[in-house]
Parts: sequence; C-alpha cells; structure tokens
Amino acid sequence: MNAPEKAPLLAQSASGAGAESASPDLNELMQTLGVQARAASALMAKAHSASKNAALRALARRLREHTTELQASNALDLERAQASGLSEPMVDRLKLTPKILETVALGCEQLAAMPDIIGEISGLTQQPSGIRVGQMRVPLGVFGMIYESRPNVTIEAASLSIKSGNACILRGGSEAIESNKALARLVHAALAEAGLPADAVQLVPTTDRAAVGRLIAMPDYVDVIIPRGGRSLIERVSREAKVPVIKHLDGNCHTYVDAPCDIDMAVTVADNAKTQKYSPCNASEGLLVARDVAREFLPRIGAVYAAKGVEMRCDAEAQSILASVQNAKVTTASEQDWYTEYLAPIISVKVVDGLDEAIAHINRYGSHHTDAILTTDHVHAQRFLREVDSASVMVNASTRFADGFEYGLGAEIGISTDKFHARGPVGLAGLTSLKWVVLGQGEIRT
Amino acid sequence: MNAPEKAPLLAQSASGAGAESASPDLNELMQTLGVQARAASALMAKAHSASKNAALRALARRLREHTTELQASNALDLERAQASGLSEPMVDRLKLTPKILETVALGCEQLAAMPDIIGEISGLTQQPSGIRVGQMRVPLGVFGMIYESRPNVTIEAASLSIKSGNACILRGGSEAIESNKALARLVHAALAEAGLPADAVQLVPTTDRAAVGRLIAMPDYVDVIIPRGGRSLIERVSREAKVPVIKHLDGNCHTYVDAPCDIDMAVTVADNAKTQKYSPCNASEGLLVARDVAREFLPRIGAVYAAKGVEMRCDAEAQSILASVQNAKVTTASEQDWYTEYLAPIISVKVVDGLDEAIAHINRYGSHHTDAILTTDHVHAQRFLREVDSASVMVNASTRFADGFEYGLGAEIGISTDKFHARGPVGLAGLTSLKWVVLGQGEIRT
Repeated sequence: MNAPEKAPLLAQSASGAGAESASPDLNELMQTLGVQARAASALMAKAHSASKNAALRALARRLREHTTELQASNALDLERAQASGLSEPMVDRLKLTPKILETVALGCEQLAAMPDIIGEISGLTQQPSGIRVGQMRVPLGVFGMIYESRPNVTIEAASLSIKSGNACILRGGSEAIESNKALARLVHAALAEAGLPADAVQLVPTTDRAAVGRLIAMPDYVDVIIPRGGRSLIERVSREAKVPVIKHLDGNCHTYVDAPCDIDMAVTVADNAKTQKYSPCNASEGLLVARDVAREFLPRIGAVYAAKGVEMRCDAEAQSILASVQNAKVTTASEQDWYTEYLAPIISVKVVDGLDEAIAHINRYGSHHTDAILTTDHVHAQRFLREVDSASVMVNASTRFADGFEYGLGAEIGISTDKFHARGPVGLAGLTSLKWVVLGQGEIRT
Repeated sequence: MNAPEKAPLLAQSASGAGAESASPDLNELMQTLGVQARAASALMAKAHSASKNAALRALARRLREHTTELQASNALDLERAQASGLSEPMVDRLKLTPKILETVALGCEQLAAMPDIIGEISGLTQQPSGIRVGQMRVPLGVFGMIYESRPNVTIEAASLSIKSGNACILRGGSEAIESNKALARLVHAALAEAGLPADAVQLVPTTDRAAVGRLIAMPDYVDVIIPRGGRSLIERVSREAKVPVIKHLDGNCHTYVDAPCDIDMAVTVADNAKTQKYSPCNASEGLLVARDVAREFLPRIGAVYAAKGVEMRCDAEAQSILASVQNAKVTTASEQDWYTEYLAPIISVKVVDGLDEAIAHINRYGSHHTDAILTTDHVHAQRFLREVDSASVMVNASTRFADGFEYGLGAEIGISTDKFHARGPVGLAGLTSLKWVVLGQGEIRT
C-alpha cells in the first residue's frame, strides 16, 4: 500500500510494469473470491458458537506450533524489504516475532472465551395486533479489509471475522505477502479442523494493486470495506468504493482543562494524553485551558512538556504565561495549527474563556475523534459530554483510553470517525446488523 | 421527481428550459441552507425534551387551526397538476384533505408523547483501568430527505427530525411545492413558539431539479440522505450521493407454507399477505408451498385468489395442482417471475421440497425485505428466523406487518433494505448514532 501519493487505486499494478487496469485474469480471480466468500458467509452465519470458538482455539494452537515456519516465511518478506530499501521503522512493523505471535494467539483465545452475540434477540415486545416484535443480531455478511504492512492484522481480522460469523476477504500489504500467505494457511487449517468453510477467510493471493480497486467495487459479494492505513489510502478507498466503508480519518484530539479543576490531576492527565505515546490517533494534539486556571496550570504542564522536549504552539495569552518556563519550546500557533494532528512531540495550546469557548473550539477545529474535559464541576462535565460532537467524550481521563480493548470490547477491528453505523472503536458488534423478528399466531393486517 | 427514466439528476432543471447544471445562485442557495442546517443541528442536539415536545404539540395545533389556509395552497398545486395532465392517482396523492391533516396532527402528538431517546446512556460499565465506559444516543446531525408528491410527508419528516434532535433539509416533489411551502411555514412558527431554531426544518424553496444534485453532495452540511420514491430516483441518489443513503429498494417478499402447518391459518395469512393491499412493499409477491401440504393447501388458496382475480404464475407442479380450481388465472412462471415485485394482483407460486429449498429460494430470488414462514414446527421456525437473510423475518404472521407503526416504533421515516446502520423499518433510533462516554477520576494510560 506504500504507493506514491497520486497513483490511482484502480489503475496501477504493484510492479509498475505497465498493467493499466484490472486484467481479465484478475477480474476472474476477484470474482471467484467474492462468490466463495458469499457462499461461506451463509454457512458462517448459522455456525454454532462451539464451532467458531473451536476454530479460534485451533488457530491459537497452530500459531504456537508453527512459529518457526511462520518466521521463515516472514524472513522472505524482511529480506525483500531490506533489499528494496524500506525504512527501518517499516521493516520493524513487518516483523513476526515470537512475542507478537503469542500476543495474537492469546487474542484468539480471548475471543473464543467471549459470549457469542450472534442470534441474540433483544427488545421482544408484544404489539397491539398480537404479534411479538424484536431484533436479532446477525452478521453483516462479507467484509473486505485493506491494510498495510503489519502481518499480525491478518490474524486479528480473521479471528474477529470468525467470531462475528462473517466471511472476509483480506488484502494485506505487498511487503508482507509471504507472511500473510503463511498465516492464512494456518487460518484455513483451523477452520477445517472445526468443520467450518476455509473460504470464510480468504487472502487476496496477488500483490497486483488493481485487486484493491476490484475488492471495493463488488457490492454483490462484499458488504462493507474496512481500510486500515494512511490517510491517502483511506480517502481513496472512500472515494472509489461502491459499498459502505468503516473508515478512520484524523485524530485531532483535545484535552480541556476547565475551571474549577484538580490541578495535580490535570497535569498528570494532560501529560499522559500527549506524551505516553506520540503516534496513536488518540493522543491529544490540542490543549485548551480555562483562563481562571491558566496562570496556575500552564507553568506546571509547561515544565513537564519542556522536560520531555514537547514543542508548544501557543496563542498569545498562553505564550506570555509560558515565556517564563525554563527550556520550554514555545512558538506561536497559526490558524492551521488548531486543525493539525501532529503525531509528534508538538501540541497546540490555547487559553479560552471557559466551557463555551472550549466546546466551540473543539467542534470547529477537532476531528470528532476523542476529546476530554478535566473538571470538578458537575454541570460542566454533563454539558461537555452532551455537546462535544465526537466519537468519544471523556471526563477526567486521558484521551489515550479511546481504544476497543480499554473500552472492554475484547477486540477492535478499527476506529470509526463516521457517525453512521459504528462510531469510535469498532468491536464485534460493529461487524453485525440487527434484523427484525416477528412471532405471530396467524395474525393478519386489517 | 416524476422525471423521465434517463434524465440525469444532476444536470437538468424541472422546467426543462435549458439549465444544464446548478447555477451559481442555486449553489449559493443550497450552501446557505446547509450552513443554516448545520448551525441549527447543534442547537437541536442540546434542546430540552420539553421544548421539542412543545414544538410538536404546537405544530399539531397549527395544522388544525390552518386547515382552510393549507387547503387553499393545496388547491394551487391541484389545479396545476390537473392542467398539466397528471394522472388521477397522482393527483389524489397530492391532496391535503382535512382527514389527512388530522392524521398527521395526531402523529405529531403521538411523537410528543413518546420518550426522548436522545442523551440516554446505555451499557455503562467499569473497566479494569478504573474508567467507566458507556454509549450515549445522539442525533446524526442533518438529514436530507427527497420525496415525491404526498405533501403530508413534509410533516412526518419534520416531526421525526424535531423529536430526534436533528436538523433536516426537505426536498419535496415540484407538484406539491405550494402545499409544502404552506406546511413549512407552520413548522417554522411551531419551532419559534417553542424557542427552537426555525432553520431546524428547511424546505428547498425551488423546484429546480439541480437542487437535488447539490443536496446529496454536501458532506460538510448533510450527514445522511433519505430518498422516498420510485426505484429510479433511489438508484440515482444512491449512485450519485457523496454521503450515506438510507434507501429502500425492492420489496419482493415471500410467504412460505411449511409442512406441518395449520392449513386454515395458512390460507388466511397467505390471503392477507397478498390481497389486503397490492401496492405496499411488504405485500407478498411469492408463495412457496412444501410438497407435503401442497395438495391440501394450494386448491384452497387458489380458490381465494381466483375469487379476487389474483393471477398465479406457477411452476409445473403448482400449475398441475391448481388446474382444477374454477376461474383461476393460472399461468406458467418464467425465471424472471421469481425475481419480480409485482405490486399488483399477481403472485408467483412454487412447490418446494421443504424448508431447505424454501430458504435457498428466498435468499436467492428475494430482495431481503420481508419473508414469513407459516409452520407448527419449532425447529423449522427457528431455522427460518436465523437463516433467511432479510430485514424482517416472520413466523405465522402476514408480511404486511413489516411497518414502523406495527413494530411499535411510533413513527417511520422509511424502510431500509440495507444491512448497514439501520435495517427494515426506520424510526427515531435510525436517525441517531451512539457516541462513547468515558467517566474517570484522573486515570491515565500505562
């Protein structure tokens, strides 16, 4: 997926060797994957919980049994990556270490231990006509997943797909093709061992980039697409897909330090929200501080950030307060800074009148991902929760908690920045739909 | 919206007078509506339940007070429609009779009496880190609705929008423009009376067809589009929209008469499912009969359909059984018949081996809208509910029950034939989203 910015998804092959659009062979291959996925999804939708859990446990066992073999396949990818001059961090992300394999194996076992939400009927109520009406949770059908180098995503997606009773078609990064093929073989063996169709999890077996264009444009065979990767990939998939997309765009998250608040707690949480890790989407990129606490709070957090080398891009008021902090990297924020997701040791800082200005700033400049208020005022907390239009809204907690595992979902297929269908961290329920169930005794409409 | 089949949505004016794309004026108008809707949606999202309910009751009162005035505006539309040679059924659908106005007024009062689902927090549970995590129901934001002649839809959409805390932009049929403008004035007055922003419900004030093309392509201002109308309108909106669409395509519904079943009940329900009304999307278009009951059941339902003039398009086996029924219109079904939504006194009839063939037929030829099994076998009922991949699955009830009011939703903005977001009848909850709420006491991520 590490394509040059402007390459159209639909019209180029990975080799760059002149293939300009999907070849007849590729079209046939993708169509076959689609037909097989649709057929497998019908079997997965009615599969017993015991079979799905058996497949997940078998997969965990096989991941442990075949660690050496997996590492041999992984070595082929790593050699090719190094030979082609892939950057060191990218090569790192490709690695299937025993530790990573153990983590994904444990993840499969945790999923196996979770309750099965498929088939659950909720809200069954009797209507005036006599019929009883409720909603049954059912799989979406087939999802397509497009992701970049980390091969462990292959197992995360496969295991979530099995547990949720869906079928999936996985398109990993071309850098990881050998690792992904080896992992897919284990998945197929685990499915077969549990009496489930191997086609329930299929890997696109070619690195031809035109395959992505086909995958996102087969509404007869694929019900939803989940892209995980850089912004340009996700924007392109969203633009060109002919089916719904569960997508994750920017994480321009804010921490708002309210007045009144517990200043010690605010320093601890604002520090964690920015510096615990710089790269995740739920790290805070903007710090808003109520004027009434700014002179007390800002020098303290400023000293913490200064010690960690975090640059503070400030409005005039914050800048003048922070001027006295030793070794602080304090600069002037531009309008663009308020919009920016740095993913780096940089944070924008602004003094606001209070709650109203904080909410207005977040709703205007934020990306509706995750925003937190640090406060001791009950009314302010309630208003922030209600009025900030973001997928996750928090009181007195670090924005870094916006995560499927921290939310108790047990697993996460992605984080949605849309409002439609699934919002925020997406677990098993995001891969399901509710159908209506009507139980009667011969009632007719009059 | 009664456009010729091939006219592109985006590029023609209603007058046909040569306007080829949205004029700068129209672009500006639509942009203004969008900006106003977005601003109003923020106020509606935090509006008190009491205000929203007061607006709904004020609207009901005003509809009753202004019946004469509304009928005068409606008369302008009716005259124009008759002068332009609109068909009698189309003119009928345009009429705002006192009875229709009373029905929509009652609908507003019923909505006012329903609980407010906005702000409700569900599933709040404590996580190992100490944070408590739940989900809050919030409005989607702004929806755009595109509909055909019936002007009462203006009030149905407006009232659902108010109750669900959304803002909406309504684009009714050009035939109903005077009626819709008069209704929109009442909505604005009711909103103002309750202290809510009048822009929460806006009617596109022009009949220029290019307005539709703009409305469906403003992702900054419109979160979802709901088209209600003929198939060609809905397909075109789905194809060209730049935002999610809650859409309703075919209703090729089935009634499957299982063995064993209560034959008397099966005759009553299969009759009702087809003949209670021919035009609704939830009328049954296909009748499947298990071989073991076919000789007993088919002659009885055949006599009922014969008496009502319903044509039966049959497979060979059904045709031979029905041959003896007096006055029956029995013809041979083509492959195409199994796919067809007749919306007319015609039904396809097929004898099947039993449950497996019935489920396979429905999943293959049906439109995943509504399908019913009539049976006394518990296992068959459970399998049908689980394995038929339709928005509504029923046991021993008429498919005609697939309806928001019959399901107890209190109101219906449409019926979705998609699996994503909302499936089947869409009430207030379909116009909302769930955001994550995190309550902490200074927890940080480690």
